[in-house]
Order: sequence, then structure tokens, then C-alpha cells
Amino acid sequence: MEHRGALVRRGGPVTGAGADESVILARAFLSRVSEPASIPVWDWVRRHGPVAAAESIQAGDVPPDVAHATAARRAAVRADDDLTAAERLGIRLVVPEGPEWPHFAFSSLEAVALTRLAAYRAGERTHRPGGELIPPLALWARGSGDLSHAAVRAVAIVGSRSASSYGEHVTTELAFGLARQDVVVVSGGAFGIDATAHRSALAAEGSTTIVSASGIDRPYPSSNATLFERAEVGGLVVSESPPGSAPHRHRFLTRNRLIAALSGGTVVTEAAARSGALNTAAHCTRLGRPLMAVPGPVTSAMSAGCHRLLRQDPTPALLVTSVVDVLAVVGSIGEGLVATVPSIATGPQGDEMRSALDGLDPVARRVFDGLPARGIASEDEVALRSGVSPIEVMRALPALQLAGVVEAGPDGMRISPAFRRRRAG
Amino acid sequence: MEHRGALVRRGGPVTGAGADESVILARAFLSRVSEPASIPVWDWVRRHGPVAAAESIQAGDVPPDVAHATAARRAAVRADDDLTAAERLGIRLVVPEGPEWPHFAFSSLEAVALTRLAAYRAGERTHRPGGELIPPLALWARGSGDLSHAAVRAVAIVGSRSASSYGEHVTTELAFGLARQDVVVVSGGAFGIDATAHRSALAAEGSTTIVSASGIDRPYPSSNATLFERAEVGGLVVSESPPGSAPHRHRFLTRNRLIAALSGGTVVTEAAARSGALNTAAHCTRLGRPLMAVPGPVTSAMSAGCHRLLRQDPTPALLVTSVVDVLAVVGSIGEGLVATVPSIATGPQGDEMRSALDGLDPVARRVFDGLPARGIASEDEVALRSGVSPIEVMRALPALQLAGVVEAGPDGMRISPAFRRRRAG
Repeated sequence: MEHRGALVRRGGPVTGAGADESVILARAFLSRVSEPASIPVWDWVRRHGPVAAAESIQAGDVPPDVAHATAARRAAVRADDDLTAAERLGIRLVVPEGPEWPHFAFSSLEAVALTRLAAYRAGERTHRPGGELIPPLALWARGSGDLSHAAVRAVAIVGSRSASSYGEHVTTELAFGLARQDVVVVSGGAFGIDATAHRSALAAEGSTTIVSASGIDRPYPSSNATLFERAEVGGLVVSESPPGSAPHRHRFLTRNRLIAALSGGTVVTEAAARSGALNTAAHCTRLGRPLMAVPGPVTSAMSAGCHRLLRQDPTPALLVTSVVDVLAVVGSIGEGLVATVPSIATGPQGDEMRSALDGLDPVARRVFDGLPARGIASEDEVALRSGVSPIEVMRALPALQLAGVVEAGPDGMRISPAFRRRRAG
Repeated sequence: MEHRGALVRRGGPVTGAGADESVILARAFLSRVSEPASIPVWDWVRRHGPVAAAESIQAGDVPPDVAHATAARRAAVRADDDLTAAERLGIRLVVPEGPEWPHFAFSSLEAVALTRLAAYRAGERTHRPGGELIPPLALWARGSGDLSHAAVRAVAIVGSRSASSYGEHVTTELAFGLARQDVVVVSGGAFGIDATAHRSALAAEGSTTIVSASGIDRPYPSSNATLFERAEVGGLVVSESPPGSAPHRHRFLTRNRLIAALSGGTVVTEAAARSGALNTAAHCTRLGRPLMAVPGPVTSAMSAGCHRLLRQDPTPALLVTSVVDVLAVVGSIGEGLVATVPSIATGPQGDEMRSALDGLDPVARRVFDGLPARGIASEDEVALRSGVSPIEVMRALPALQLAGVVEAGPDGMRISPAFRRRRAG
């Protein structure tokens, strides 16, 4: 592939920089050229990097499935114009290669996506109405919050649009109380439970993240425009779709996976049996994050979805009734993993070093041993060196990162320099 | 011990016969001489049989712990008068030696009691506020129902006395619907959820069992007297305490274990955080029976107990919202056990016979092999012959009975004659 130069940045400095300008431009193009959560496009970018992938797509020099997902727009996209317009609107593009990308939040999404990719490559073409669980190619963001902190102390609060007064009441109590405890409230920007959650967190002078299904400059519903503006003070509005994108139905479904991924856990406060919130709930469970639900009267159809989640087999939602209950769950996010990994030794003793590695499960230990002594290796390289599949490498990554022995970035992973120094010392 | 003749029946035929008159008389005495759920008394009766146990207690020729539990009343009890009075009131005495004793319902209670007995004998004297989980020595009963069918298709519905309109509504729906499906509703006779459950089952022309904490002739609360009378038509009122007994507090707690034991499962429809219904719920779980709870608004203190049960670790209650949910649970009572035991072969083929026994778990199989080819053996004898502890023998019993290969009665257990014939043939 040789298409360099096809994407050119004519304007000034790129908004939300920190990554190479060509990468920003390429990812802006990719974010517009296909609809969110396209497996072939994601895989193409993964294999060739954003710049080469964008150029080959623009040139039409791609496999049929990638062409199918991008043919309609590839000639029309003006990434440069999109970035200029975004800049004018105060919107920045957050990319995996930049400092604001939430690697920790998306690590589960990466792991699940690799499993799905294996099935896709093996020919599985199941239509998933809730959208594919793959990471976004880029995220458009506005607001003073820092997306890289996402999922560390954040809870999604979701539910039905047509909330009852009971649902509104419960949502208010939870969102307000969590915000008071410095928990970021994450939700969509819809009527009902979503809006109530954001408003209550803001009333508590807390920070919220709205994950929008439409472009950030097109708040939907438009009557919530003020809410979007308020969320940007101290918080964030993010969207996978570029500015100007309309709120198409499938964008709500693909959006839901981001709500689940950008939160340490999801609470469904009130949901009818067919609520879209159940889609977010399913994503939360598939990502291995704790799913919580608030029970309600069994006589209320508006709580039927919550009760379904609480009865779900084999992974029932956790029943929560108060802020204290939710904090007990999200307070322990990541701690389960850390508990199996003894804390990193602070001294130079070999014994303590060994114990940090001994706490890893066997696969994680093999992955660690597959890393080069110095420098960065891609997950495929590590897989080859360790004899562990690339998917298992990705799955072991969060534990290795939490143990402080490995660092991961867009180019691959490496032994944490701090750990290497202590080990050597 | 030789005290024969100390208990004499002066009157006519014994009400509720089917067992030896001396046994009925002895159990009437035992039922009055100590408070329900006394471990030393139960153990004493277990070791010496009811007649010798009653005579030795009356004579004061017993170990200190038995004496302590019986000294206050042993000289005053007139078992004969109790039986005569009961007969006049239409009340019969149901005993383990008679045909109406619910052996199946009490098998779990027996198994748990034997574990507790081992600890008691080892010196453990923990005070259990909910009462000891041991079988009753006898049960006083009135009504046209047959107690021996208990727990086969029966559900306990319990909850707070001060029910909300939500709790009353949910209880009505469940009790009415279950009664329509020929499920016997079991509960106490208290205000609130108890009374609502009985009334609703009766409204559906169903059958109910009231387990009374006071004597059957002293309905408590007295304003529920009519309810007790109605329950006796087609159903039962039962009590561990003899006629005339007052509703003392501890009798409510010991009574609760019988509600759980006489039901295939227990549903808590509405309970505050400190409701006595949670005591029944705990008994249900300890007996290995399915515990169910109905959620309610988290804003209602009246549902806090139910939510606690639904979050209980490690044995959360099953969340139920409807009659269908409850039937799905109780419909499978015993089926789990049966499923692991292939149905008994109807033909004489040795292969089919073997497969019925092969379906048993290893301990149950050893217990079966420990049974004599003919005749009855006590659990201690079977334990000795099979090399399995007496407790394990009792625990294996329900599976063996459900497989149809063993029969158990008050004197011990034996290979089912039908199975023996098929096996020989």
C-alpha cells in the first residue's frame, strides 16, 4: 500500500493534539467514513495503522468487507474540514495515540473485541443488534474533563426514557449521592433516567460524562441542549460520531457499549422489559464490569427490566438500594484483580520482586516472560514469544498493568521501566 | 429404666390413632412437659423411644439437661386429660409412629438436627434465638387436610404483620394464584401478610395450613379465629404446643422452623429489616429449601427485609415477581434429586435395575448397600454397616426415597419391598 499524501491538513495546528498530525487527520477521516463499530474497518486499522488504513480506504484499495463499509462516503469525507469545524466548536478529537485516550477503560473492550474478531475471521457474520463490542476508532470530546481518567471512579446510571416518579426519585438519590462522593456519573443524554442522572450529579456539583449518539454539536433531544452545555463544565460530552452527525437509531445502540466501557460499573435504576438500558446492561456484563439494578414494585411495568436483570442467569445483576450499596461495588473495581497480585515491592529485594510476579496467574506470567527485556513489543510479537494467543495476551494485560509490571500504549507493551529498574537494582 | 405404667390412659379410644396408644399418650406428655425445640429432650426421646423417655422424665430419672428442661412441669402434666380435652375440641395428635406424620417434609429437619446434635454433644451450648432446628416431638392438628402430604406441593408465604397496601396486594396475587394451581399455602396465623395469604388462598377455594404458635384452641390474634375455622375446612391448623398453650414469644420463633419445614419453599412477600419473617427465611435456607423474596420500592422500609434476603451472601433468595415465577421454583422441588436418579425400571431387567442404583451419588449408594436384604434397620445400624456417619445416612435418605429404592419410617429404614421384588424378578 502506498497512498501517502492523500490526506492533507491544510489548516493550522490540530485541536486536541498530543498525537502526530497525520494520525489525527487519519482518525478524523476514519471516524466519518464508516458507521461506528464496524469490525472490518476496525481490523483494517488495527493491522495497518490509522494513516495507511485511511489512505487505502480513500483510494478504494481495500478488501471487499472494508470497501462495503466505507464505499458510500470515502470520496466525500473532508477530514480537514471536519477538524476545522470541530475546532471552531471547541470540540477535540481524542485518539489512541494521544495522551487523553482511556486505555484502562477500553482494555476490556479490546479483549472482547479480539475474541469477536477471531470469530469474524473464521467466517461468523452474526448480526448483533446491540452493535459489535469493539473499541471506537476515535472519540470527539468537548468539556474540561479528562477522558483518560474514565472508568477509574465512574458509574453509569441508565434507564428508561419514560421514567416513573419512583424511577426519577431513585435516580436522583443515587446520582446526587455518588457525585457527592466524587464519582463521575456517565449516561446518555436522553429524556427520563439519563437526564435525571446528569441533572442530579450536576446539582451536587459533581462531574458527569454524556455519551452522545449524535454529533456533540447536535444535542439530542434538542431540549436537553442546556444540559449538554452544563455537563461540559468540569465534565465531558463525548461522541464516536463526528460533529453534525444525526441521531440515527443504530448509533444509540453502538453508543451504549461506550457508556458501559467508560464506567467502572453500570446501575439500571428503572427500566421496562424492552428498554434500551438493557442493551447497555448486557454490554456491561460482557465487558466483565459489575452490573447493578435497583428493584421496584413488581406491580410496575417500569421496573420489569430491572427485575429481569436481577434474575438473569448465569450473571444476575447486583441488587442495589442506596449510594452505599453502589460504592461498595464500585469502590472495589480493580481491587479483585489487584488482590491476586501482591503489591509491587518498594525495595530492591529480589524476594519481593519475585513475589510480585508470583502473584500473577500462569498465563499472565507467561505473557510477562514473553516481553523483551527492553523496548516495546506488539501483542502479536508477545504472543509469538510467549506461546500464548494474542487474545490471551490482551486479556492478561489489565492484571499486568495493575500489578505495575507492564505498561501498554498504542504501539504495544513493555516491561514497566520502574519495575525493570527495581528488578535490576 | 423401668417406669412402665406411670402414664395411663383412662378414657376411650385415642383420637388420631394409627399408632400405639401408649405412644400417643407418651408423646402427648412430652409435648406438654417441655417447651418446643429442646435438644436434650429430643435426643432423649430419640435414644429411648417416646414411652420409656416419657416415663423416665415423669420419674425424674434423667440426665441434668433433660431434667432442667422438664422439671417444672413433669409432675403436673396430665397427658390423658390433654388428649380427652383435645378429642372434645376435634383436635388430634399426629406422631412420628402414625400414618399422618410428614416424614418427607421433616427429612431435612432431621438431617440438620443430627448435625446440631453432634455439636451439642461435643459441648456446644450456643443460644439460638430462632430456636433449634430439630423436629417436633408431636403435632396437634385440626382440620380435614392430611399432614402427611405436607411439603409436596406447598409454599410458605410469610411477611411482616404491619404490611403496606403494596405488600397486601402482592401477597393476595401470589396466594390466590398459587391456590388456584393446587398449591397449599402455609403460613402463621398473624395479622398482615400471614392472614392475607390465608384469606386469599381460601378465596381461591384452595387449601391452607396455619402453623400456630399457641394452642389450636387459642387462635392468636383472637380476631383471626374465624380464619382458623375456615382454614380447617379442607386444610389444617397445626401446633407443636398442646391445646390451651398461650402465644409466648419463643413459641413464635420455634414455630417458624415448622412453617419452613412444612413447605417446599418459602416466599417472603414483604418484610421490614427486622421482621420475624426473616427468621423463617433463615430456617428455609438452612433446610436447603428454596427461599424466594418479592422486591419492592427501595424507598419503602417495609421491603428492606426482602432486599436484604435478595442480597444475602452466599445464599441469596430467588427474586420472584409472579405466580409463574414461584411455580417455576416449587414445581422443581425434588426434581433436582430425581433427575440424578434415573426413574425406577418398570420391567424386571437387571440392567434397568442397576441404572436406578447407578444414578445415586456414592454416599447414597453406600447407604443403600448397608441396608439388610430384608427387614428394617435403624439409621445407626445402617451407619455401622455402611461405614457412613449417621448424619450422612439421614442426608442420603431423601434421595433414596425419591429413587423409590428405600422406605423410611419411625423404626428405621428398609429396602422398598417393590424395588426388592423387581430386583429379584
